[in-house]
Amino acid sequence: MKVCRRVNFNAAHRLYRKDWSDEKNDAIFGKCNNPNFHGHNYVMEVWIEGDIDPETGYVIDLKILKDIIKEEIVERFDHKNLNLDCSEFENLIPTAENIILVSWNLLRSRLDEKFKLKLKLWETENNIFEYEGL
Amino acid sequence: MKVCRRVNFNAAHRLYRKDWSDEKNDAIFGKCNNPNFHGHNYVMEVWIEGDIDPETGYVIDLKILKDIIKEEIVERFDHKNLNLDCSEFENLIPTAENIILVSWNLLRSRLDEKFKLKLKLWETENNIFEYEGL
Amino acid sequence: MKVCRRVNFNAAHRLYRKDWSDEKNDAIFGKCNNPNFHGHNYVMEVWIEGDIDPETGYVIDLKILKDIIKEEIVERFDHKNLNLDCSEFENLIPTAENIILVSWNLLRSRLDEKFKLKLKLWETENNIFEYEGL
Amino acid sequence: MKVCRRVNFNAAHRLYRKDWSDEKNDAIFGKCNNPNFHGHNYVMEVWIEGDIDPETGYVIDLKILKDIIKEEIVERFDHKNLNLDCSEFENLIPTAENIILVSWNLLRSRLDEKFKLKLKLWETENNIFEYEGL
Amino acid sequence: MKVCRRVNFNAAHRLYRKDWSDEKNDAIFGKCNNPNFHGHNYVMEVWIEGDIDPETGYVIDLKILKDIIKEEIVERFDHKNLNLDCSEFENLIPTAENIILVSWNLLRSRLDEKFKLKLKLWETENNIFEYEGL
Amino acid sequence: MKVCRRVNFNAAHRLYRKDWSDEKNDAIFGKCNNPNFHGHNYVMEVWIEGDIDPETGYVIDLKILKDIIKEEIVERFDHKNLNLDCSEFENLIPTAENIILVSWNLLRSRLDEKFKLKLKLWETENNIFEYEGL
Repeated sequence: MKVCRRVNFNAAHRLYRKDWSDEKNDAIFGKCNNPNFHGHNYVMEVWIEGDIDPETGYVIDLKILKDIIKEEIVERFDHKNLNLDCSEFENLIPTAENIILVSWNLLRSRLDEKFKLKLKLWETENNIFEYEGL
Repeated sequence: MKVCRRVNFNAAHRLYRKDWSDEKNDAIFGKCNNPNFHGHNYVMEVWIEGDIDPETGYVIDLKILKDIIKEEIVERFDHKNLNLDCSEFENLIPTAENIILVSWNLLRSRLDEKFKLKLKLWETENNIFEYEGL
Repeated sequence: MKVCRRVNFNAAHRLYRKDWSDEKNDAIFGKCNNPNFHGHNYVMEVWIEGDIDPETGYVIDLKILKDIIKEEIVERFDHKNLNLDCSEFENLIPTAENIILVSWNLLRSRLDEKFKLKLKLWETENNIFEYEGL
Repeated sequence: MKVCRRVNFNAAHRLYRKDWSDEKNDAIFGKCNNPNFHGHNYVMEVWIEGDIDPETGYVIDLKILKDIIKEEIVERFDHKNLNLDCSEFENLIPTAENIILVSWNLLRSRLDEKFKLKLKLWETENNIFEYEGL
Repeated sequence: MKVCRRVNFNAAHRLYRKDWSDEKNDAIFGKCNNPNFHGHNYVMEVWIEGDIDPETGYVIDLKILKDIIKEEIVERFDHKNLNLDCSEFENLIPTAENIILVSWNLLRSRLDEKFKLKLKLWETENNIFEYEGL
Repeated sequence: MKVCRRVNFNAAHRLYRKDWSDEKNDAIFGKCNNPNFHGHNYVMEVWIEGDIDPETGYVIDLKILKDIIKEEIVERFDHKNLNLDCSEFENLIPTAENIILVSWNLLRSRLDEKFKLKLKLWETENNIFEYEGL
């Protein structure tokens, strides 16, 4: 049985590598390399897989999951500049792939080992990402 | 090849256990334990996995699947009180997890064994559930 | 300039008149007359029309509007039985038309007279309602 | 890690077999057998599974994926009559199942072997399809 | 008070004028001038403005409105070729503007004069139309 | 008759006044005053009101409207920092109200006087704005 809580956060970011020339950054990252940043409304679905607790009829209380997501993801990334405000991206390009990877590790460490974890992330309505660990 | 039909039903429910005190029910189920019930617009996706029939180009005729879903799910749960009107939940808390489990068993018994069955259920736009059997 | 905050609440209700026979209630209200209630995820948009404050660039701070909506609408109706828990519907059928009318009056009394107020309410994804006063 | 690009195309089609009588075509395909065709706004999600490139933080540059989808899917099917304009459906009924199968083969041939490919197709908001190869 | 019922229909069409050259039709209507037609999933919102009936709490019974829309719009246009199957467009280009105009006249003739009527039509998720009469 | 084209742009911004203290900026603009910026996926609907051209069945060719919006809005604001990259906001706080006001003036100057113009802007799925001139 899989259960999911959906959340939103709004953040600025820039895609570039300090060790590349401006030309190479522009060639690879295009307009995402704007030195003054741009931003997105990110939508994240947090999916937990586990057994139904026969006492409560819940896999996990979604109110508790919501609080964990708020602490680990929303308070960390919402209304932030991912490159400048978030130490997770000090040496990691904040592509959607890396945002979902970082988020998965943050949430994984807060959840009981009996649960499987999968994340889905919308960066725009046309660019979507999914990760469930290795 | 997987094919899906999406349906809606609107129902009232209450989450609580008769064998628990009011305090424990409130602690675990919070405002979902309102004795006078509350309700949701449920959205369900019914996913069938099978081979394409080379004669028709269909896995299953979705008009037929729609009729099965109408008989088993919509007529049973739509505009109903899940706790009071539906015998399936006489001794089972109508959490979304249990609704999807009951629905999966109802639909499974109506479908050819050659098909795999997966359900996805939205209780709200932020709380989502998925089940594909054991 | 018009600005809007969107909110959700989930409630149970029943459409019927005590002064009508069961037959007449069924004829007029159909399955919405289930004596055990059914329910919906209501979505409400609260639209305020006014001038931009040249100092802040806001018509109204949407965080403040959000708090007013929470106090007047969400805390009053969310996870409630509109017929049994809400005195507003003691002598008023909780159709979507009456829910939006009651909500408009509640919000109107909390807003500065300089603002116009319009509400939009989704009872289901196919049944939608709008009211902006007389 | 899975990444996805979403696209749209609008097309006309008719479901029928030349080797069946009109009666049989009507019995199986119903109103989808209108000899003058009908049409849909198709929405397709193209999902690629692969490893994150540690240099760019991308699985695949979605701008490049977008261009491949445009060439193989959008330019081929958008504003077309699938039965009359598209050689892929000269001897294949353009059901959504066959559209997704044809599209999967077209995209598969353009992508590096290291990537897995999955497609999701909405024919209407209630009829959805998914295919990831054999 | 305004109330709305939302419906869908799927149709094929072609935009062109018989009295124009192919070159002019292509210049004005572009790929919408495909002689073999293309198609869309149309979504229509039918908005009625009137007073709340104090007896029922309804402006109009949306089940009745739904039946009128089914008879006048859905059965007429769904799974049809607007150019070939619908006499309304025998001498009228089936642009979304003309579809909404024709639909408004059809529905207007079925509704009590005390109601105002407004239609909203999505031809794609990016092209939207609205008409409320002269 | 009203016709609409919907577009998207993704941008970073910060809400603050240089002539206010940090304390006052925080009190009024909260987390929107992050000195390192945050961002949004803006969705804009551009509505034109006019008569149907009897020759084409169009109010305005939406392909032409799309090009105007691309030049005036998307190329100006997409993947930009509204505060640092856009001269329009050099002395104007980039609230959604001011973004829609600036956009309306830019589009108004490009459209024939016979058309009325209305804009609708989503900053998030819960914060929405509308402007149609004075």
